[in-house]
Amino acid sequence: MKKTISQATIDRLPLYFRTLRLAEAEDLPIISSDELGRRLDITPEQIRKDLATFGQFGRKGIGYDVRELKERIGNILGLHKNWRLAIIGVGHLGGALANYVNFAPLGFSVVALLDINEKIIGNEVNGIEIEDSRRMNEVIAAKEVDIGVITVPAVEAQGVADKLIAAGVKGIWNFAPIKLSVPPNIPLVNEDLSIGLSALSYHMTQED
Amino acid sequence: MKKTISQATIDRLPLYFRTLRLAEAEDLPIISSDELGRRLDITPEQIRKDLATFGQFGRKGIGYDVRELKERIGNILGLHKNWRLAIIGVGHLGGALANYVNFAPLGFSVVALLDINEKIIGNEVNGIEIEDSRRMNEVIAAKEVDIGVITVPAVEAQGVADKLIAAGVKGIWNFAPIKLSVPPNIPLVNEDLSIGLSALSYHMTQED
Repeated sequence: MKKTISQATIDRLPLYFRTLRLAEAEDLPIISSDELGRRLDITPEQIRKDLATFGQFGRKGIGYDVRELKERIGNILGLHKNWRLAIIGVGHLGGALANYVNFAPLGFSVVALLDINEKIIGNEVNGIEIEDSRRMNEVIAAKEVDIGVITVPAVEAQGVADKLIAAGVKGIWNFAPIKLSVPPNIPLVNEDLSIGLSALSYHMTQED
Repeated sequence: MKKTISQATIDRLPLYFRTLRLAEAEDLPIISSDELGRRLDITPEQIRKDLATFGQFGRKGIGYDVRELKERIGNILGLHKNWRLAIIGVGHLGGALANYVNFAPLGFSVVALLDINEKIIGNEVNGIEIEDSRRMNEVIAAKEVDIGVITVPAVEAQGVADKLIAAGVKGIWNFAPIKLSVPPNIPLVNEDLSIGLSALSYHMTQED
């Protein structure tokens, strides 16, 4: 049976994962919910509630085994799967994502870059050659891509999504500001950088 | 009295705002929660609940006045304030943000770019000259910057945040993967692109 976990909890899991990875690097064997909370600015109650959703992790009055908790959260998030990403649209944002250093420690690798612009096809970004997006099927299959990252303009995004799915990707990460239609078995996450900025604007307005 | 609005609701408001802006562009005078829900893939119940948090917006059985609702949400989010942004660290991500087209329609303008690297100081990105980040105080004041956007490496981020706050910014949008310390009157939003990707990984793992 699949449990329904709130999106907010899912969103916090990568934060826990990263903090635990740092704690592991510090050779910390055990971490309390108080200490996790201090490092993340989340209440210990919230942390205990989040982690309890996935089963019994910690031991009362002692804390969590850092390595065990990190691995279990990693497994829940599927970070042990070494997902392979293709970025479609190597403009400023696509190029920034190709160079983004925070993906690799979480088990994501960018393995392919695709663009339709002849002027940049053949160029390399972060050691990866930009290939012709008209060869999408071939590239997605050859490089065993799991996740298609869409950083093309909004008008092109649905067409790219359709082609990615036909080519066999298992999930879509969409940066184009448009609602995409995808089959129900293909997970889709929409990223919108203006959401965070609007939240900041909201809080600044409350401060006035 | 300040009401506490859940972060999830605040996160949805920019989506409502954008959808209403598109509806306004289509000359749609009235929109129902059903139609908003269809366009956003959010249940009509959720939409009515979110909007009710901020007072009585719609009329039962008729719908929402598109223009009025758009303006009220814009006011709640503070999008009418035309916030001015400075991006500190003009690498791949900073450069991508300087070129990101979705900010302007929400009332955000990038007015300054700062970097410490002599090799790129003086270059232009999207028509804005990159200035020396050692001149931060002067640039922030002269360009009347409201929001500092931090896209420097993690080890430099706290120092940059301190300088931005000393220079007078009113809010910080942080892309560095580190927890920053800021005074309580300075709103801080942390952006982490690996959160969305981890959520996608989670959903893909459930599909297996």
